Amino acid sequence: MTRYKLTMAYDGTEFSGFQRQPKQRTVQGVLEKALFKMTKGQPVTVHGSGRTDAGVHALGQVIHFDYPGNIPAENMLKALNSLMPLDTEILDSEIVTEAFHARFNTTGKRYFYRVSRSYYTNPFTRHYTGHYAYPLDLGRIQTALEDVKGTHDFTSFAASGGVIKDKVRTIYDATLLDVPAQNEIQLEFYGNGFLYNMVRIMVATLLEIGNGRRDVHDFLRLYEVKDRQQARGTAPASGLYLKKVYY
Amino acid sequence: MTRYKLTMAYDGTEFSGFQRQPKQRTVQGVLEKALFKMTKGQPVTVHGSGRTDAGVHALGQVIHFDYPGNIPAENMLKALNSLMPLDTEILDSEIVTEAFHARFNTTGKRYFYRVSRSYYTNPFTRHYTGHYAYPLDLGRIQTALEDVKGTHDFTSFAASGGVIKDKVRTIYDATLLDVPAQNEIQLEFYGNGFLYNMVRIMVATLLEIGNGRRDVHDFLRLYEVKDRQQARGTAPASGLYLKKVYY
Repeated sequence: MTRYKLTMAYDGTEFSGFQRQPKQRTVQGVLEKALFKMTKGQPVTVHGSGRTDAGVHALGQVIHFDYPGNIPAENMLKALNSLMPLDTEILDSEIVTEAFHARFNTTGKRYFYRVSRSYYTNPFTRHYTGHYAYPLDLGRIQTALEDVKGTHDFTSFAASGGVIKDKVRTIYDATLLDVPAQNEIQLEFYGNGFLYNMVRIMVATLLEIGNGRRDVHDFLRLYEVKDRQQARGTAPASGLYLKKVYY
Repeated sequence: MTRYKLTMAYDGTEFSGFQRQPKQRTVQGVLEKALFKMTKGQPVTVHGSGRTDAGVHALGQVIHFDYPGNIPAENMLKALNSLMPLDTEILDSEIVTEAFHARFNTTGKRYFYRVSRSYYTNPFTRHYTGHYAYPLDLGRIQTALEDVKGTHDFTSFAASGGVIKDKVRTIYDATLLDVPAQNEIQLEFYGNGFLYNMVRIMVATLLEIGNGRRDVHDFLRLYEVKDRQQARGTAPASGLYLKKVYY
């Protein structure tokens, strides 16, 4: 057995998320299917750094698995890229010790979210951005992002259904990038961990702050009330990218 | 009856081309379906500046149609954008006289073609670029583009199946743009008209010239031999964009 750590990108549009599900096309599913071919029928279990939902993209998802055999890391990359569908790409491959675990060893993650500001949906970016057609005061979003940074109880920003009790997370960095040439803004978050749907709920809240529908410091109130109902919106999956996983 | 001239964009990925076909999803088909709703059942025939094939995109396709009624041009744009699917967008709308015809009055067209140079297919651009993973000498392509400009018999670059006898066209401009940040090149062609598949066949020939598989001045030979078989390749539809139609 050899343990491989792979970094991969995928276009989430045609996946029912990362996690294997019966009768659904998932990233874990297509990976395990490709590995099953390589081993000529020995099942290999893939472990991801975490799930991504249906429609969510990855630029740097990290996975590991134990392969029954020992082939050079570069050959594993080539073999999987030739067997995997074209909406996935293995970017990097290395052999690691059994001390490495893609999920348990993470120390942080970086996500970014693309918001298209065009009035009508852009046909070419509809699967790759969220969309907000209302006016935005970017200065207000910048101010709110200062409240996002730091250690907070993110209960108000966690979708129901999560099993994790501890909702305290630390956001090391939260930035806004204005890309007027593409008529979009990009929000980037780097933290020690993110709750289920947390980035998409934060983005929806930030857009409402930018539009003036919420107080500019509403994050501080939402940390206090610990009530998912008060954050309300969830930005669409299509704008979200898992950019990097830290170990 | 009022004649409308519309400029529109579409992502060609999920269309079986522009032209209406039974049981196929086409751009003309979805336009006529939307107009049928607006007229509450009166069929409206849409005329495009020309066909685009399955998978080919448009940034500035031009169409016209006669609408039984007279609504402001801006309202036509809004109505169609609310009725049309999200992989299309009406960009501009104007009311024109009956002297205007989207196909017969064209004086030129501008196409561009995106070629991804990454080793593996990029999951995010697979539907929006062609792909050429072999080495390219861009200087050779630049030289060949000089041979593309001007008035030539493009018989060697016309897919069989076209009904047009006269294969002489004038290319006013043909340019190469290197976009190293995206690991791609873009080829742009502006001419008085283009034969069926002509841009895609020219792109395939240009890439072979760039790779050194053909003489740098092979276009001059191909104009002479007037033999489609000798140009051989056709670059994939996914990289091609109808950028602008001139009247």
